[in-house]
Amino acid sequence: MRFVVTPWEVKGEVDYERLIKEFGVEKIDDKILKLFKKYAGELHPYLKRRLFFSHRDLDWLFREYEKGNKFYLYTGRGPSSYTHIGHLVPWIFTKWLQEKFKAKLLFQITDDEKFLFKRELSLEDVKKFAYDNILDIIALGFDRKRTEIFLNTEYSKTLYPLAIKVAKKITFSTAKAVFGFKNDSNIGEIFFTSMQSVPAFLESVRAGKNIPCLIPYAIDQDAHFRVCRDVLPKLGYYKPASIHSKFIPGLGKGGKMSASEPDTAIFVTDAPIEVERKILKAFTGGRDTLKEQKRLGGKPKICTVFAYYSLFETDDKKVQELEKKCKCGEIFCKECKRILIDIINKFLKKHQEKREKAKSKVEKFIVKD
Amino acid sequence: MRFVVTPWEVKGEVDYERLIKEFGVEKIDDKILKLFKKYAGELHPYLKRRLFFSHRDLDWLFREYEKGNKFYLYTGRGPSSYTHIGHLVPWIFTKWLQEKFKAKLLFQITDDEKFLFKRELSLEDVKKFAYDNILDIIALGFDRKRTEIFLNTEYSKTLYPLAIKVAKKITFSTAKAVFGFKNDSNIGEIFFTSMQSVPAFLESVRAGKNIPCLIPYAIDQDAHFRVCRDVLPKLGYYKPASIHSKFIPGLGKGGKMSASEPDTAIFVTDAPIEVERKILKAFTGGRDTLKEQKRLGGKPKICTVFAYYSLFETDDKKVQELEKKCKCGEIFCKECKRILIDIINKFLKKHQEKREKAKSKVEKFIVKD
Repeated sequence: MRFVVTPWEVKGEVDYERLIKEFGVEKIDDKILKLFKKYAGELHPYLKRRLFFSHRDLDWLFREYEKGNKFYLYTGRGPSSYTHIGHLVPWIFTKWLQEKFKAKLLFQITDDEKFLFKRELSLEDVKKFAYDNILDIIALGFDRKRTEIFLNTEYSKTLYPLAIKVAKKITFSTAKAVFGFKNDSNIGEIFFTSMQSVPAFLESVRAGKNIPCLIPYAIDQDAHFRVCRDVLPKLGYYKPASIHSKFIPGLGKGGKMSASEPDTAIFVTDAPIEVERKILKAFTGGRDTLKEQKRLGGKPKICTVFAYYSLFETDDKKVQELEKKCKCGEIFCKECKRILIDIINKFLKKHQEKREKAKSKVEKFIVKD
Repeated sequence: MRFVVTPWEVKGEVDYERLIKEFGVEKIDDKILKLFKKYAGELHPYLKRRLFFSHRDLDWLFREYEKGNKFYLYTGRGPSSYTHIGHLVPWIFTKWLQEKFKAKLLFQITDDEKFLFKRELSLEDVKKFAYDNILDIIALGFDRKRTEIFLNTEYSKTLYPLAIKVAKKITFSTAKAVFGFKNDSNIGEIFFTSMQSVPAFLESVRAGKNIPCLIPYAIDQDAHFRVCRDVLPKLGYYKPASIHSKFIPGLGKGGKMSASEPDTAIFVTDAPIEVERKILKAFTGGRDTLKEQKRLGGKPKICTVFAYYSLFETDDKKVQELEKKCKCGEIFCKECKRILIDIINKFLKKHQEKREKAKSKVEKFIVKD
């Protein structure tokens, strides 16, 4: 089956090698990892494990960095649901980038997008999700002095006048070709990408000079930034650099973790017993019988339990060990699930505490007009 | 030749009877004039002379008014040039409406529109025109306590979140059918009508209940409000009522007064000698020779000088008298031009004084986020 990767739909088994070619991005290779290690001092597990697998212009970004031309970070969240642990993954990486490069971060919450694209959601719904999601963002420990979070609808006096400068450079045919708009697409959907472009040059506008920008995002958002990179030079700004993650699988078979299929997603507020229930039901790479598992070994590559283990266990050795054990048939799915339940519940216990504390910090992180 | 009337183009000799049918508006008839007279106490010359020639739902508006359900006014300006006297005409009428009905007025300056639709204009250009135009608006004597003027780009925190509610209800096919967008239309143009809809329900949003709205506009803007009237009930608001003016002719032959053909337009800051020069060159309904004029009489109906005379001379008797004299060949174009030059220069002298004084009042009229 052909897979589909657009900002509003991810379907089928994604072939990342093919995406690299189709989207025209660069693979993250040893050269890039070397640069990361040189400037960050270490490699984040998500880099080592190639969860972040492709990029644009990272080599340029590091050259500028070397010259003392520091970059800022921009990432975003479309608030169409409560946060699940799949959402946290790129944010955890972004937080690491901020820490290692002492970078300012603009965190755009695209409440307008989710309102426009989701027929069933009201603006009140998406704002409720937005403010709930923000608690999770803050809980991850972003640097208050270097982070600005904003909702598009609450920052539109700043964003809209810049968005129309972008919009003026994007024809309907371009938008249609890139995003696949149809006759029944609403005119807000068609305009929206302009709003998503703005944070990629907002710091340059503020500073009155060009500042490099690095955008970490899940590869499904690529369409927006292909357009953005076309337009920004026409407005006199740098093209943003970017680094792209693969999709975080759901606990079911195939597809990314999706809040719209609640049993395949572990929400950050799930109680331990819920986490246990969901992981016990999860799709694994195990064989049908214990006997077969012993004889043939499991398939960690397609196992959602292993996938989550490798996202939340930062110790490389442990991950490699479990992978090996699985492949050799020395461990069974039930055991792995228990290990994962334990890790996730420990993580969530801490996260939920920090989430509670985040409630009093929201105003300090948010910028409004 | 077929005429064209869209928000971005008015071409050919406009057949207003046909427009009434095509746009599906109602003719302003004696019944409506009677209602105006009843509630306003008098008829503005622009009503008597049918410069405002059509409407939507004025009968409903007056029924609501009778019940004590007062309306507010909404009009706008697209700041693509300095103000000429043609621009003033609908504003003068709007001011009269405000006075007679003690109505609040929202005055939208669509700087975003003009930036998006005029390839050659920067956002800085349109904002310069906007602030200059605002001086003329204020100079006309709008009630400071009942008037709010805003630029879309400076009020977008208020407007954008409401505009996306409108946008979500407008498909690309609708926008394309109504406005004639093409593949090379930019995505900001496509979205823009949503911004123009907002003031038609903004007072209702603010009040938390439905308030009737009356929009005076030149008929070329009708496309926007046809769409607006389709959408607003879907959001739970009243359809706005409206009253539409004919186009103000330029001083040349055919077409509306246009700032892009400077010699056909009298700008509000023109010096008396400029006014004189332009009016002396104006297209009239006079005959080729004095002899013929005496024998056949002139044609005030096609005469731009007479048109302006009837816009700026408020005394009905004088206007009727001049018309009669012209038709009977008792007056020649040069004399009429002298009369008009005198009237316009007197008007502009006062206007320019008030315009000067308006400079200190701008902040009191403008609302920003």
